[in-house]
Amino acid sequence: MNIANFKIKPNAKVKLSKFPTGSGSKKIDKEAFKASLQKDIDEISDYQYKLYAEDRQSLLIILQGMDASGKDSTIKHIMNGVNPQGVIVHSFKHPSTQELEHDYLWRHIQKLPEHGHITIFNRSHYENVLIAKVHPEIVLAERLPGVFTKANIDEKFWKNRYKQIVNFEKNIIQNGTHVLKFFLHLSKKEQAKRFIERIDNKEKHWKFSPSDLTERGFWDDYQSAYEQALKNTSTKKSPWYIIPADDKDYTHQLIGKIILDKLKEINPKFPAVSTADADSMAVAKKSLLKESGK
Amino acid sequence: MNIANFKIKPNAKVKLSKFPTGSGSKKIDKEAFKASLQKDIDEISDYQYKLYAEDRQSLLIILQGMDASGKDSTIKHIMNGVNPQGVIVHSFKHPSTQELEHDYLWRHIQKLPEHGHITIFNRSHYENVLIAKVHPEIVLAERLPGVFTKANIDEKFWKNRYKQIVNFEKNIIQNGTHVLKFFLHLSKKEQAKRFIERIDNKEKHWKFSPSDLTERGFWDDYQSAYEQALKNTSTKKSPWYIIPADDKDYTHQLIGKIILDKLKEINPKFPAVSTADADSMAVAKKSLLKESGK
Repeated sequence: MNIANFKIKPNAKVKLSKFPTGSGSKKIDKEAFKASLQKDIDEISDYQYKLYAEDRQSLLIILQGMDASGKDSTIKHIMNGVNPQGVIVHSFKHPSTQELEHDYLWRHIQKLPEHGHITIFNRSHYENVLIAKVHPEIVLAERLPGVFTKANIDEKFWKNRYKQIVNFEKNIIQNGTHVLKFFLHLSKKEQAKRFIERIDNKEKHWKFSPSDLTERGFWDDYQSAYEQALKNTSTKKSPWYIIPADDKDYTHQLIGKIILDKLKEINPKFPAVSTADADSMAVAKKSLLKESGK
Repeated sequence: MNIANFKIKPNAKVKLSKFPTGSGSKKIDKEAFKASLQKDIDEISDYQYKLYAEDRQSLLIILQGMDASGKDSTIKHIMNGVNPQGVIVHSFKHPSTQELEHDYLWRHIQKLPEHGHITIFNRSHYENVLIAKVHPEIVLAERLPGVFTKANIDEKFWKNRYKQIVNFEKNIIQNGTHVLKFFLHLSKKEQAKRFIERIDNKEKHWKFSPSDLTERGFWDDYQSAYEQALKNTSTKKSPWYIIPADDKDYTHQLIGKIILDKLKEINPKFPAVSTADADSMAVAKKSLLKESGK
């Protein structure tokens, strides 16, 4: 699998219906997939340790997708096995009253990764050009200067917001936070299947809300909002990947590979030891050995 | 192994030199230990999922211990394999200027677990009766009313602070946050061994700072500060466990068992579905099936 195939080039027109949601004609050997994913996770784990030790760069992973597209399960399957001390997951829900006192990026900025960390945004600032585009009353609740009615929220408004997001990401990238963005591309049919599963399985009831069905009613609007967002915010340094999401094994496999690839590119190093540090460590060792009579 | 043996009864006098730092005469079968720990982790993972689904209770795990006592490695070995979406680790370093504008508990309160989460404090508010007791200038930096010189920081001051911590924990426990507290009890000899390992191993240099040796110089003061803190803050609902820390396999084994035990006691449940919810799910299912022509 060539991961470059799933990457969106800057300003490339995106027609989601032309992108696969399944794993294609390939027959998936579940056991082989599991073993290969585990190998990638072990490597991710080694890189994470170095990233943490280096303490100068960080990685922000953004997961977006329709309800039931597998965001939670991706986190569970890929990040299980990576030291939780260096991996932080934030799930963004509806903004609070306090958060609405700030601009839409503010609450996401609070949760950006610290040096050395991998942070996952399970939904992200992109909701502000996705659900907010489908339901513009969300933008009205932000109480922006000059934006008083839905008529003010036009194409120019969205183009501008895409640019704000690109600028925001450019800044954090220049300061050491690398960014990976995944759109989990689910078919409408598979969503129905997964919803029914959540309804049928008592242990999954809590993951289903009747409002999920309401949002499903806006399927085409969401697809179009995603197409616009992906087109306008995929940049060379902060690209979007459109990941087929109908088959979870395949999804995890792809995302694991892309994260590992990125970590190889980031190439974190154990901090170098200065001569002064080396000297003081030698002194420390001497004193510790002396203490124990060696 | 009877985990009750490691629990400190409220107000029990604690003499650390009488507590084992090693695994005792028991020969450790590494492979059997690993398998047994993995079994416990799998169970912890299942409970974590229920805790997350229930979304009403949470678990705060506090790890304290001298440098190199194995706090990081405990987190890595026990919490690897538990979904990072519901497990958060906070490492507390020196307080920032902004944090020093607030009382000593404030910055820890910010990081308390959300409903459904397991949060680990890698060092905690207890540092305010540990390192702060060994180095009272830390208390002076807090700019407390009436506390102007070290002479103000007397036995009464510390007794009062223990009570504040007990009260604070009582409040969060009553509101659904369960608390487990582990003191990783390391021998001075094993610390020297681990420091030398950090000095000798280039990949561990970053974990060693010459100031670690300075703090080692205060070993007895720290042991005494721990004895006082454990005695005065171990309560029935928020007990301290003194965990032998010279053998990491044994440490992880014990802590894993105690966490699992606590989760069994917490006994989280998948949220119950009300009749109204069940009805609306039935309607949703009907509509989804109709859509797909079934």
